[in-house]
Amino acid sequence: MQTVSNTLCAWRWIAPILLGLSLSTAAFADTTTADGWMEGFPPPADRIIRNSDRDFFSAPKLAWSVCHLRELLPTKSLPRGLAAPVLLDYQLDSNINALEFRRSDTGVTMTWADAYTANHTDGLVVLHKGKVVYEQYAGCLDEFGKHAAMSMTKSLTGLITETLIAEGVLNENAIVGELIPELKGSAFGNATLRQLLNMTTGLDYSEDYSDPNADVWVYSQAVSPLPKPPGFEGPRSYFEYLQTVKPESKHGTAFAYKTINVDAIGWVIARATGKSVLELLSERIWQKMGAEQEGYFTIDSIGTPFAGGGLSSGLRDLARVGQLMLNEGSLNGEQLVPAAAIRSIAAGANPEHFAKAGYTSMPNGSYKSLWWVFHNNNGAYAARGVHGQTLYIDPTADMVIARFASHPQAANSGNDATSLPAYQALADYLMKQAGTP
Amino acid sequence: MQTVSNTLCAWRWIAPILLGLSLSTAAFADTTTADGWMEGFPPPADRIIRNSDRDFFSAPKLAWSVCHLRELLPTKSLPRGLAAPVLLDYQLDSNINALEFRRSDTGVTMTWADAYTANHTDGLVVLHKGKVVYEQYAGCLDEFGKHAAMSMTKSLTGLITETLIAEGVLNENAIVGELIPELKGSAFGNATLRQLLNMTTGLDYSEDYSDPNADVWVYSQAVSPLPKPPGFEGPRSYFEYLQTVKPESKHGTAFAYKTINVDAIGWVIARATGKSVLELLSERIWQKMGAEQEGYFTIDSIGTPFAGGGLSSGLRDLARVGQLMLNEGSLNGEQLVPAAAIRSIAAGANPEHFAKAGYTSMPNGSYKSLWWVFHNNNGAYAARGVHGQTLYIDPTADMVIARFASHPQAANSGNDATSLPAYQALADYLMKQAGTP
Repeated sequence: MQTVSNTLCAWRWIAPILLGLSLSTAAFADTTTADGWMEGFPPPADRIIRNSDRDFFSAPKLAWSVCHLRELLPTKSLPRGLAAPVLLDYQLDSNINALEFRRSDTGVTMTWADAYTANHTDGLVVLHKGKVVYEQYAGCLDEFGKHAAMSMTKSLTGLITETLIAEGVLNENAIVGELIPELKGSAFGNATLRQLLNMTTGLDYSEDYSDPNADVWVYSQAVSPLPKPPGFEGPRSYFEYLQTVKPESKHGTAFAYKTINVDAIGWVIARATGKSVLELLSERIWQKMGAEQEGYFTIDSIGTPFAGGGLSSGLRDLARVGQLMLNEGSLNGEQLVPAAAIRSIAAGANPEHFAKAGYTSMPNGSYKSLWWVFHNNNGAYAARGVHGQTLYIDPTADMVIARFASHPQAANSGNDATSLPAYQALADYLMKQAGTP
Repeated sequence: MQTVSNTLCAWRWIAPILLGLSLSTAAFADTTTADGWMEGFPPPADRIIRNSDRDFFSAPKLAWSVCHLRELLPTKSLPRGLAAPVLLDYQLDSNINALEFRRSDTGVTMTWADAYTANHTDGLVVLHKGKVVYEQYAGCLDEFGKHAAMSMTKSLTGLITETLIAEGVLNENAIVGELIPELKGSAFGNATLRQLLNMTTGLDYSEDYSDPNADVWVYSQAVSPLPKPPGFEGPRSYFEYLQTVKPESKHGTAFAYKTINVDAIGWVIARATGKSVLELLSERIWQKMGAEQEGYFTIDSIGTPFAGGGLSSGLRDLARVGQLMLNEGSLNGEQLVPAAAIRSIAAGANPEHFAKAGYTSMPNGSYKSLWWVFHNNNGAYAARGVHGQTLYIDPTADMVIARFASHPQAANSGNDATSLPAYQALADYLMKQAGTP
């Protein structure tokens, strides 16, 4: 898949990370779970992963890199504060691993445990009625580790934005060019904040990795935190790049998943509040939810946190965010974000706009405020990131599933058939156990 | 001071960080405390600090960079574990700021508060009888922040090494070339572990920044975690570089402060235990001492933590390490490291070896196991790093001083005259307060 010219400079590998996509979509070999990456003093030469490796975020190296991005790139702390963590309650259910479901593609029956392995899961926590009923780790992750959340970061940016809207700090109908004068001449200039939040902007922006002239390469180069080559004169930050984006079509008619919308939202948030999305996420959520670990964000060369995909965190801390969503903003007896913010997300957006993008594994879905809304009987919605990252909220089953993974295929179409029906089966099981009809 | 050719590649700026020295030793302007670095979305062009800036670890940018190294470089977490922090007890003494002492150079009287400012202090905590009697922050640091410890990192590596010696895992008289066969052909090959620990090796290694051919530049390039230029064929890690170091003189006769000794010790530790100094520091100390924050280390391109200067941490966590030293290895009722390890450090080394190096501000001193020992009446010893980093242990006064600073002059000779007599004056005051004659 690495059709891009090898003469391209070292930062080009960063594109798949920054954009939440992978150069490698073909390899499904078992080597993704091979041990020994970066082990030993020194590690064997063929087990070393460097930030100069173009393939460090593709299988098989992906299996290590998802837990170690800060060892490859400059990053910024997402502080948890200095208070004691608020520990989760446990009521583990040993029956879950044997739970059966049918794959949504082939119809073949498999177990939850089979799916855990098939999905290259690095860690999975299930909360039911606020208690941990399932917790498992594999690959590069354990309870002390941190894992790339990839595009689940978008959803946290969306939550912060909806919070600011609910509090009247931001207006969803505001014109972005009026909020950020620097963006007036760009495609974002005449879009509303809501259009960015639901990704219904019409942007002339290509993420086609097979095209060496695709916009994604200019973007990747612009936002890499690694030094540029001598004489480089292109954009050198999210802010500089966003100003160059040109319009392609009318805003507000179709969903089109383009990460750069979220970087623009990050700028809107920062301009309105004087704080980056990272600072707000720390102040409003990470320092308040009893987080066990500080997280971190990848950044650009001027320290801007990557609002569209930069977060790495502990797994249970991700689960805490899910419980916060399920509880409509309250956790440990405190209302951390307004219920209205979460209700707005869970209500979803226009499925007709969504249908135009052709996501077959979410036939009735929509994308609202950077969250994926299933519009199913349970009212489920999710944060999703490439390679299997998932934070799945099922309000009806009172269930949160937090999953980190390193599936060799970037697009979640590669694991939805063995994931979404498993989630539904677990929801059904838990409701039955709880006596809910 | 930037006499090095500007044609040199971008990673060359890293040398001062990695070696704990600064390209700038002349500038003492007040600009070091100027506000506004990296503030704003985006920051003003003249307030941006990038890792491609050659001067990012010199004044005035130093004042920001000491708190933000991970935003400029790849780093590795120093985990604190998931338990609640053990909070420090407080008995603040408001008289300390007015305490007077005489500068050791001019004899002029100044106050503790004057010295705090004059030394470009970013944060200072004093523990007396285990309680916080003084705590102050300034510049880029607050109680939630982390600051570069620079060469104080060496002393933590020394503490881990002495622990392993006390436990019989390492033998101080072992020949390094026998512990690490890869080092047999290098200057380290026929040195003992003790000679490395006390820096009495005779290494052909120049840290002369005015010489573009000095070894320090090859070293800096080798250990930088940023991508090398295409076609680069030199050493690419601490391990590879260390094998190239040639002997200059006989080992064991004179103290000569050369950071590369500590990187070699890091390798010895890793080979003997299967764990890096970072992992041991986390397991043995950071996870056990009730630390408030995880720390982090800068690393090379294969993830090796910089044993000679890579740590950044919270200030109170540094103070906890000091209290652990003062308590001869016990903290919160648990013996974390053997008392013998700390007694070996505090006893000091041969002052005759030390005198040959000409440190005028420590006339009776020695350097033992990577700690600076004063051989004064109080039995004081310290971890020290460039730009004013200090962890000062005074067993007689039952006092620990933890200080982070961003003094524009790298060498501590630039602040010892306004620091060491202040520490002694505070020790005298606290002993008097406590009724100790």
